[in-house]
Amino acid sequence: MLRLTLEQAEELAQAILRRHGFSEAYVRAIGTTLLAGERDGCTSHGLYRLLGIVRTLKAGKVEPCAEPQVIDQAPGLVRVEAHGGFSQLAFAAGLPLLAEKARATGIAALAINRCVHFSALWVELEALTELGLVALACNPTQAYVAPAGGSRPLFGTNPIAFGWPRPQGQQPFIFDFATSAIARGDIELHRRAGTPLPPGWGVDRHGQPCSDAAEVLDQGAMLAFGGHKGSALAAMVELIAGPLIGDLTSAESLAFDDGSQGLPFHGELIIAMDPQRFLGPAAEQHLARAEVLFEAIQGQGARLPSQRRYAARARSLEQGVAIPRALYDDLRALLD
Amino acid sequence: MLRLTLEQAEELAQAILRRHGFSEAYVRAIGTTLLAGERDGCTSHGLYRLLGIVRTLKAGKVEPCAEPQVIDQAPGLVRVEAHGGFSQLAFAAGLPLLAEKARATGIAALAINRCVHFSALWVELEALTELGLVALACNPTQAYVAPAGGSRPLFGTNPIAFGWPRPQGQQPFIFDFATSAIARGDIELHRRAGTPLPPGWGVDRHGQPCSDAAEVLDQGAMLAFGGHKGSALAAMVELIAGPLIGDLTSAESLAFDDGSQGLPFHGELIIAMDPQRFLGPAAEQHLARAEVLFEAIQGQGARLPSQRRYAARARSLEQGVAIPRALYDDLRALLD
Repeated sequence: MLRLTLEQAEELAQAILRRHGFSEAYVRAIGTTLLAGERDGCTSHGLYRLLGIVRTLKAGKVEPCAEPQVIDQAPGLVRVEAHGGFSQLAFAAGLPLLAEKARATGIAALAINRCVHFSALWVELEALTELGLVALACNPTQAYVAPAGGSRPLFGTNPIAFGWPRPQGQQPFIFDFATSAIARGDIELHRRAGTPLPPGWGVDRHGQPCSDAAEVLDQGAMLAFGGHKGSALAAMVELIAGPLIGDLTSAESLAFDDGSQGLPFHGELIIAMDPQRFLGPAAEQHLARAEVLFEAIQGQGARLPSQRRYAARARSLEQGVAIPRALYDDLRALLD
Repeated sequence: MLRLTLEQAEELAQAILRRHGFSEAYVRAIGTTLLAGERDGCTSHGLYRLLGIVRTLKAGKVEPCAEPQVIDQAPGLVRVEAHGGFSQLAFAAGLPLLAEKARATGIAALAINRCVHFSALWVELEALTELGLVALACNPTQAYVAPAGGSRPLFGTNPIAFGWPRPQGQQPFIFDFATSAIARGDIELHRRAGTPLPPGWGVDRHGQPCSDAAEVLDQGAMLAFGGHKGSALAAMVELIAGPLIGDLTSAESLAFDDGSQGLPFHGELIIAMDPQRFLGPAAEQHLARAEVLFEAIQGQGARLPSQRRYAARARSLEQGVAIPRALYDDLRALLD
């Protein structure tokens, strides 16, 4: 492992993005989210993603200099047309108007359209909770997951994330999870290792429970978490972050990719709510009751959803990040 | 079993409610939802609930003639102060303004406060999808469920429901599920039968997996569905349908009940979105892509979430409903 300061890690990410022709706005926006992932111990959303970013660019599947276009769709709706660029810049472009609308109306939505997407949603939710807003975000991905009772890939791994601001400089309550039982990458690891999958991860081509990773990936399908309930949530994400915002479902996104193995192209929906507008002068009193709930969770030895991530962040801020030498070499090679 | 026409079932419900002093507005609003539950084969939300309704009334835990007060809180927010009445009338009172706001702003929320609650959320979502709106609803209940990794009751069974309107007179896509692994009543049945609980339903007082129903109910806690993901969703429901709307968490609701075993007293949050406002002239084209998703679910032999309920409805519309003789006798006794 090789240790980098956070500054070095961000500079490396920015240099690679710049070298491949991304505009300065993307260099900064993507660099920030890659650093956030690496810093918080989410290495699957950290510097490693630069390999996929460059592969997607070379396949002609992302616009490196697209200018996101912010559209004031309705008193409670912002649309950002990403024009085929990465989602981070579209989100940054739409955030101020989303926050303004949520404060004015109490609840507002941001629809990002036609973006290339690999961001962990918690990064965006932190930006919203920093503004004092409660937020919910979701997006389709690419069709890998069968509906409960089915046998063929239809839903994406469709993440759902939620953020709640906390007072006095405390880190927000945020969760961010895939509605699939497990990440596709974890099933890939079982294929490589030749180890059987735990129950509930996938089905074979006949829709029967299957522990063979190759069969699940090539002939069958992944499963949603939590049986028919998780499957229903995955369907909801398809609908509200697909047709409702005029963008692709996971099946349509996979078809669009056409085997290029690029990062997925689709939309994203973010809903923001302003507790001050919901509660008026009583906001402080009611938000204090949320703190009682958090204390009751931690007081019985359970964890808040982001606790591990915040612990990793605290370590990284002191010690920097450690990345595998092989990854570092691969990343350096992208600078040539 | 005793067969009743739908008219007879509704008349019986209305007569009991009237006999116990509910105002005509509640007689109609509650009667309609009880009939809907019975008709759709959700007997736990059907006529059987009249027993709990009368028990709650006799315990002084519900106001039989409270007039819901509609408050225009913000351009995207409606509040209905239920003044301790049942939620159905509060929902009916707030629905027109919620729909008007969703159409004007694109997205709007209805917060129902200080209601007594036993309604299945799908009944309300059907009313919203009939207006062409996409909707999401949730509420806390009473603290029975431990957070993932914990050992003590904190979250309610916290239902989440979602509705999506469909074209040409097709029944809407609606799901409505508890975030607990199973209903509390199902664990009660295992206690009575002396049968062990399946894995994942509950924990003992030390937070260890437990198959003893009595231990789970009296000393331990129920579990959320889907591990830490379901637990995170249950926490979200506590927050957005509790403190965010200035109403009770499940733990506060249980404390308020103070052992009376009445129906729970708390709030409810409903979010409505207008596809026409999101999509403008392209709405029809994009909503047609949702139909492709539904066909792909059913085309591989999987069910849409409400399919069984709609099948029961079709049968009931032809044949009426069948209720156990003992329940019928108990209900008739409420008329004396």
